[in-house]
Amino acid sequence: MNKTELIEHIANNADISKAAAARALESTIDAVKKTLKKGGTVSLFYHYFASKEAFGMELIERYASYFAYKLDSHFGNQTLAPLARLEAFVADAVSGMERYDFKRGCLIGNLGQEMNGLPESFRNRLVEVFKDWETRTAACLDAAKAQGQVAPAADTAELACVFWIGWEGAVLRAKLERSARPLQAFAQFFAAGLPRA
Amino acid sequence: MNKTELIEHIANNADISKAAAARALESTIDAVKKTLKKGGTVSLFYHYFASKEAFGMELIERYASYFAYKLDSHFGNQTLAPLARLEAFVADAVSGMERYDFKRGCLIGNLGQEMNGLPESFRNRLVEVFKDWETRTAACLDAAKAQGQVAPAADTAELACVFWIGWEGAVLRAKLERSARPLQAFAQFFAAGLPRA
Repeated sequence: MNKTELIEHIANNADISKAAAARALESTIDAVKKTLKKGGTVSLFYHYFASKEAFGMELIERYASYFAYKLDSHFGNQTLAPLARLEAFVADAVSGMERYDFKRGCLIGNLGQEMNGLPESFRNRLVEVFKDWETRTAACLDAAKAQGQVAPAADTAELACVFWIGWEGAVLRAKLERSARPLQAFAQFFAAGLPRA
Repeated sequence: MNKTELIEHIANNADISKAAAARALESTIDAVKKTLKKGGTVSLFYHYFASKEAFGMELIERYASYFAYKLDSHFGNQTLAPLARLEAFVADAVSGMERYDFKRGCLIGNLGQEMNGLPESFRNRLVEVFKDWETRTAACLDAAKAQGQVAPAADTAELACVFWIGWEGAVLRAKLERSARPLQAFAQFFAAGLPRA
């Protein structure tokens, strides 16, 4: 069936003009394409869609909890100096990405990237999750400050923020290049750029 | 997108009543289903997908050319000191993102993020585009070195690489937060972290 035939079929069956049928078809294709492109589903075909928002929010909560636990286990590791804890987190992330052949990244980063096609309610929650990770990272940098690894005047909240901005970029690039190099390059620059005591 | 939303979309875009849009949608689904059931193809979808790869590659080429021109116009600006040229690029990006209400980001970064769902041929080309931007950025940092703004021992290729890793993360975050703050925070940290002469 070609496009002309389909338009005729729509016009006949929907009792509208061919011009209206053509416009209706274009907007249907457009909507389906855009939705599929964004990774969404069209509920005529799949019936799970009504719960997508709740499902997505639940995914965010679970990933945020899992990740907060991971950060705490690294940043609270008293057997290492504070900056070595950050290095251990980076090494853990590198081996995690390698294990999945650089196909998996960060759920929060992925959803953030796709916000244009997601419910607006996700935006604030994603921003809050980053803020939570930043707070935990800043506490580790504060510990580094207390132990003289970082200068007393360092703005640890701002530094933690920069870490997560750049780190998400590094995860993105690591996936693209299927290599740990971007993770290591950014982590090294970040550590070198910390104001030292 | 659920059926009600799709019908609304069709009605609005095709400028027909909701009732007509609903009938048009039903007959579209009906025709596509019947054709597929018979083992036939619907040539609008088939046609679209056949050219998807070539179309995407063309988009990458155009964006890469446009962006290379933009970088050259900033980094080649002899009226500014080399590091001020980098600042001018950042300021230009900030105003560009503000102008589109932080809805637009970087095509290369977006495609890189979506590689799992894209033709594998895109991967190398996207990596090459980043390498091209890095080369242009490294040349600007080399000019900074020649003018004594950056230390002679600085590894400008590596620094340019870190810039693009972090900058794409900053663009991602700026879109999420609808704010220029991440762009400025990363650019400031990057500039502060450059080895100085």
